[in-house]
Amino acid sequence: MKIGFLIFQNVTQLDFTAPFEVFARMPDSEVLLISKDMNPVKSDKGLAVLPTHTFENCPQLDLICVPGGGGVNQVIEDNISMNFLQQQAQKAQYITSVCTGSLVLAVAGLLDGHKATTHWLSIDLLRKFKNIEVIEERVVKDRNRFTGGGVTAGIDFALTVAAEIYGENIAKEIQLMIEYNPQPSFKAGSPKLVDSQILENVIASRKEIQNQRLEQIDRITTLKK
Amino acid sequence: MKIGFLIFQNVTQLDFTAPFEVFARMPDSEVLLISKDMNPVKSDKGLAVLPTHTFENCPQLDLICVPGGGGVNQVIEDNISMNFLQQQAQKAQYITSVCTGSLVLAVAGLLDGHKATTHWLSIDLLRKFKNIEVIEERVVKDRNRFTGGGVTAGIDFALTVAAEIYGENIAKEIQLMIEYNPQPSFKAGSPKLVDSQILENVIASRKEIQNQRLEQIDRITTLKK
Repeated sequence: MKIGFLIFQNVTQLDFTAPFEVFARMPDSEVLLISKDMNPVKSDKGLAVLPTHTFENCPQLDLICVPGGGGVNQVIEDNISMNFLQQQAQKAQYITSVCTGSLVLAVAGLLDGHKATTHWLSIDLLRKFKNIEVIEERVVKDRNRFTGGGVTAGIDFALTVAAEIYGENIAKEIQLMIEYNPQPSFKAGSPKLVDSQILENVIASRKEIQNQRLEQIDRITTLKK
Repeated sequence: MKIGFLIFQNVTQLDFTAPFEVFARMPDSEVLLISKDMNPVKSDKGLAVLPTHTFENCPQLDLICVPGGGGVNQVIEDNISMNFLQQQAQKAQYITSVCTGSLVLAVAGLLDGHKATTHWLSIDLLRKFKNIEVIEERVVKDRNRFTGGGVTAGIDFALTVAAEIYGENIAKEIQLMIEYNPQPSFKAGSPKLVDSQILENVIASRKEIQNQRLEQIDRITTLKK
């Protein structure tokens, strides 16, 4: 099973490092990190990761996964990345995303006619794609499309994928090994759970990225009509 | 706030990439990745990360965090790593670990007289250190020592640390941004939650690493007496 993450500058690293940890523990799996070139990819918070493959030397993937992050705004305007995804998607068994990676899949046309989700902050942006049925759940499965919500949803997403491909027991073994028995101190992981001041602060901190993204997706979805 | 992770070959990458994502979102924080040299550090599952500092050029840290993984077996025998930790610990405000990183702190003598925890598979190994009070909880706080359980416990651990340093509201904002509203499909993240076959399979898969570690820690704790 060849599993590949598309990675790019200003990716949110936990969007792919968390599912990487799960996927790499599946039997007979190989996890690839694919980028435009072999330069280190720096996350939006400065973690530098080395790609394993470029678009040119990447083999056909069985599962492709697109993470999210601020860098999504550049990827959705990049034809080379879009072509790579569209080409891989023709023969990939599973097409997946975590966080705002689903916006990338959406722009590539790879979620048309499917249910999908994304980070709560971008859910209205995903709704701009009229051929996608947006579902506000942590993990959404629709045939061979699996999409996860924001950042840490990648763990629930990846264990769901592991269970789908290898069965419940393998997924449980991986969950036990990574001790995924979550016990957050606070109930604050969803906009529905926090008070309005916390919600407003988070929205304000992302205003610039979200505004740019809105302008981009308005333009892209208008062009598609 | 200067926060540094000690990283090493065969580290479990999610042990530090998860808390990295939390710590990097704290106000005025800088997150460093410190290694013996500037070569890429490859995780036990093959993810390659670039260090930001070496032991030599690492500034005094306010918070030091040691992740775990198979590579712990090499780190606990490495005097240079031990010296680095002991030196940093003299002035660091917080001394912390995720997963089997607590075994490294234990060998360095930095958990003596404190409560601590570790990955469930290594809990009996931590008990070999008679000056440590081992607690089987997901996150253990004892004065300025914070230790987390296995792998994904690093998220709960890091949010606990964020709340301690910056207060509940900042921790909640980070939790909301990383959408940490966990919904695992299965209850399998603790040895108490799974059936015996799954537990046996996981134990068997780690037998070699754990046996080596037992021999090492027996020797180290005997020498200490």
